[in-house]
Amino acid sequence: MPSANRNYQLIAAEKKAQQWEKIPDQWRIPMENFEGMTYLMDVPLHCGVLSDTEIEITSDYDATALLEKLKARVWSVEQVTVAFCKRAALAQQLTNCLTEIFFDEAIERAKDLDRQFISNLDSKALPPLFGLPISLKDSFDVAGYDTSTGLGCYVDQPAESNSALAALLIDLGAVLYCKTNLPQAIMTGDSHNNVFGRTLNPRNTLLTAGGSTGGEGALIALRGSILGVGTDIAGSIRIPSLCNGIYGFRPSVGLIPHGGVRDLTPPGTDGVRSTAGPMATSARDCSLFLKAILQADTWKYDSTAISLPWQGLPSMRKLRIGVVQNDGIYTPTPPVRRGLQKAVNLLNSTDGVETISIDLPSVLEIYRDLVAYMMLLGNNYYQEQFARTGEPVIPSLKATGLLSVPGTTLEGFFNLNDRRSKAAKAYLKLFCDNQIDAIIMPPSQHTALPLDCWKTATYTSLWNYLDFPAVVIPVDEVADIDHADDLTRAEFGAEDKEMYSLYTGPDQYKRAPVAVQVVGYRHRDEALMRVVEVLDLINHKQSLVKG
Amino acid sequence: MPSANRNYQLIAAEKKAQQWEKIPDQWRIPMENFEGMTYLMDVPLHCGVLSDTEIEITSDYDATALLEKLKARVWSVEQVTVAFCKRAALAQQLTNCLTEIFFDEAIERAKDLDRQFISNLDSKALPPLFGLPISLKDSFDVAGYDTSTGLGCYVDQPAESNSALAALLIDLGAVLYCKTNLPQAIMTGDSHNNVFGRTLNPRNTLLTAGGSTGGEGALIALRGSILGVGTDIAGSIRIPSLCNGIYGFRPSVGLIPHGGVRDLTPPGTDGVRSTAGPMATSARDCSLFLKAILQADTWKYDSTAISLPWQGLPSMRKLRIGVVQNDGIYTPTPPVRRGLQKAVNLLNSTDGVETISIDLPSVLEIYRDLVAYMMLLGNNYYQEQFARTGEPVIPSLKATGLLSVPGTTLEGFFNLNDRRSKAAKAYLKLFCDNQIDAIIMPPSQHTALPLDCWKTATYTSLWNYLDFPAVVIPVDEVADIDHADDLTRAEFGAEDKEMYSLYTGPDQYKRAPVAVQVVGYRHRDEALMRVVEVLDLINHKQSLVKG
Repeated sequence: MPSANRNYQLIAAEKKAQQWEKIPDQWRIPMENFEGMTYLMDVPLHCGVLSDTEIEITSDYDATALLEKLKARVWSVEQVTVAFCKRAALAQQLTNCLTEIFFDEAIERAKDLDRQFISNLDSKALPPLFGLPISLKDSFDVAGYDTSTGLGCYVDQPAESNSALAALLIDLGAVLYCKTNLPQAIMTGDSHNNVFGRTLNPRNTLLTAGGSTGGEGALIALRGSILGVGTDIAGSIRIPSLCNGIYGFRPSVGLIPHGGVRDLTPPGTDGVRSTAGPMATSARDCSLFLKAILQADTWKYDSTAISLPWQGLPSMRKLRIGVVQNDGIYTPTPPVRRGLQKAVNLLNSTDGVETISIDLPSVLEIYRDLVAYMMLLGNNYYQEQFARTGEPVIPSLKATGLLSVPGTTLEGFFNLNDRRSKAAKAYLKLFCDNQIDAIIMPPSQHTALPLDCWKTATYTSLWNYLDFPAVVIPVDEVADIDHADDLTRAEFGAEDKEMYSLYTGPDQYKRAPVAVQVVGYRHRDEALMRVVEVLDLINHKQSLVKG
Repeated sequence: MPSANRNYQLIAAEKKAQQWEKIPDQWRIPMENFEGMTYLMDVPLHCGVLSDTEIEITSDYDATALLEKLKARVWSVEQVTVAFCKRAALAQQLTNCLTEIFFDEAIERAKDLDRQFISNLDSKALPPLFGLPISLKDSFDVAGYDTSTGLGCYVDQPAESNSALAALLIDLGAVLYCKTNLPQAIMTGDSHNNVFGRTLNPRNTLLTAGGSTGGEGALIALRGSILGVGTDIAGSIRIPSLCNGIYGFRPSVGLIPHGGVRDLTPPGTDGVRSTAGPMATSARDCSLFLKAILQADTWKYDSTAISLPWQGLPSMRKLRIGVVQNDGIYTPTPPVRRGLQKAVNLLNSTDGVETISIDLPSVLEIYRDLVAYMMLLGNNYYQEQFARTGEPVIPSLKATGLLSVPGTTLEGFFNLNDRRSKAAKAYLKLFCDNQIDAIIMPPSQHTALPLDCWKTATYTSLWNYLDFPAVVIPVDEVADIDHADDLTRAEFGAEDKEMYSLYTGPDQYKRAPVAVQVVGYRHRDEALMRVVEVLDLINHKQSLVKG
């Protein structure tokens, strides 16, 4: 029965019950054993659900390495799929990170792939993503399953066809097995809604898992997935990547097919557009994803795609990187500053890498316009959706203040566009005049915050506004030396001080990941990934040091 | 003195006088000798201004061949530039096709290029467009010259910097030497305005030169240019290409940098966007232009560019071409039908080429929405510009009825976008399901019309609406056998009959070119040019037949 006009609590109860049924008994764990625990990362390894092989499959490889194993037939697609389904089921029980669960169908497809390619022993003749399990944010249509995006009014309305990306990934040989949680209206830093509830951060359940692609963030952190796809209109890939200590890539708009995604905005909305991109456990997996998609002629799948081909650019030998310490609105808190400095120090000690200091102009004006872009028609569209099932506004959405942003007129919209194109021109000039290959900067002024405190996205949304591609790279986690310091450090005004005061670490922020953000030129996404592969030495050098 | 608030007639008189001064005495011709002549194509060859070498340089080559000569130093850049400046001066006197004239500066630049590369004998080390004269539609900013677009209110406000494309072409070694005429408000099929007056069609001055890039059309027809750049938001490259018997290519939006172009629409307007593209005397010159631009990293020049790289796609061996007889709104007149059939017959007799019949859905609904897109904010923007200098609305603009189209709201705009993205999806499916490489169809239901009669653009604007790239290929001209036939042929209603009745040929349409339009997939512009190179056999076979 269609959900519209029924009460959201009833809808949610039914939906959650259906969800629970999708998890086989033998994959269920006694959650009471973990009550009060804030660190859940090790649970999948010790709870007894996964075999040693399944632990190896899901723990020890990134997607690139696993794909090699799959193509070499070290494990069958079925084995790999079952392993990830099980681990995703564990992640779901621990963090509530899933929405639609289709393990059964995934395992059937895995068997089909095994059968179909049983005699094909030339790994180069296999589809590029042969047998690789990939998770999707709930907003991607997958035929036969809801795209409720956590709104009661869209429950029990299964998609009739696959989104362009889902269709493409299937054609490339991937195995889709679940969709993941997100916030009501897809626009907050807490992945929480009235249908599925809240996704927790498995590194520290007192901190947010981030949003809007927070389900992916938690799922990948727990290795219930090693390659997921999110969408990002103001930071929705990068913020949960930061919060969960994984890699997240916001490509230029349209490069990854976005047709068949339910947007937060009313149909036909233009302006700052949402973009689809990968979340992963390594930098090279973000490249793998980009390469597989761009090589697949996206124009065939999606009339809205910007169909750039993969160029096979050479590796970068010399890099010139602009370093941005802050955005002039919010002061990075101690662990964020330390993380950036650590990355910059490692870069400066690397042959062929040069850094220069860059200041970003007009971020405040840009952020004001970005907020206006988010709410072009005002809040009616959202309120009407909520009202259909009587669901309340979630706290984190209230906290953003977005629902009280007034709409604008067509003339106002064109004025926004005009200012935006001028800003894009100025930023392109800034990059070109400084002859930089990329910028490195924080992805936010803070790390993952306590629940429902995430209110701003100036560091990420700037690049949505300008449509520059950006990647989040984890570099560390909050350490004992990251003491909260004096509020006088926050020199950009009252709001800066308010946000800065939220950092009360290190104890309260235990295990919160620290990351950097690397930003490149529009439509030079492949070149950016070449840069990121070099910059990722931050992590490789680090492990050498640790070793 | 800035032109705003002065009377347009004064402004125009001054501007025309300045223009006349830019043509050296010895390049001037006694126009009274040509009074009453409707066919002007041969005048440049016999008027005595051009030397035999200059006639050869300007008459005997397309841009590809001329570039080879330039790189082989058969002629100096200066010789070539002077030849085209002279022939453009003749074209200007005959058809009034130019706006800004900068022959002096072009010749200085030509000398610079000759000097700069004097010792460089390796043609591969020369810039890709070394010494090639290129003309631009008036709407492209060229530093130091007006971008008046034929509006009194913008006269005497020279551009401070080059448009992205002008800058790029200069970096590629091209020589810019003039800008070309267009209609008031850049939105009619007659290139006529209150500053520069009307551009004539040199094949038949009683017929329109087309618009909005009509100045380029006439200039290239007379070989005062062999490679020009126009813009196209509803047919503005293709219509004058059709009217003047040249090749015209409307690329996918953003592939050719469009930053620094004065649009007909208010700043910040989104929706159906204008696109820049080449007009030329051969199909391969359209490829040459596309290749040179795409290889030049457009992302560096223009923050609004869709920066596709050139891929070096192989030639097409097998082609499957959809044939569209009409758009279901307007019935093609006899010469248009004959031209298409001739092209299809030649294709059908070609090895490796297969044709199938295709019907285009929803063209009327699409055209209605396209018209709404053209006038999103209503007519105030235009009326205000006209009022500043008291200039009247030109007859062809009145005839289109565009100025009485009401504006819409932001919600209305998003509804347009929503319908448009659904249509684009349906059309992509139509192309894919039929497994066609391209469509061949008329570029209009009629040929060039008598002055101020061009009112519709359903055949061209469909592809702007959908953002599919499209090329116009000349295939013939009106022949003695193209008799006007019975109005009952026009079966799509009263408006169809009205347009159909305009064809009273063959006599009144003497020398009117006949062309076909070839349409490919969005962002597959390079692939479309590969197709067009094959389809151009229409012309090669023809000349074989003629020979």
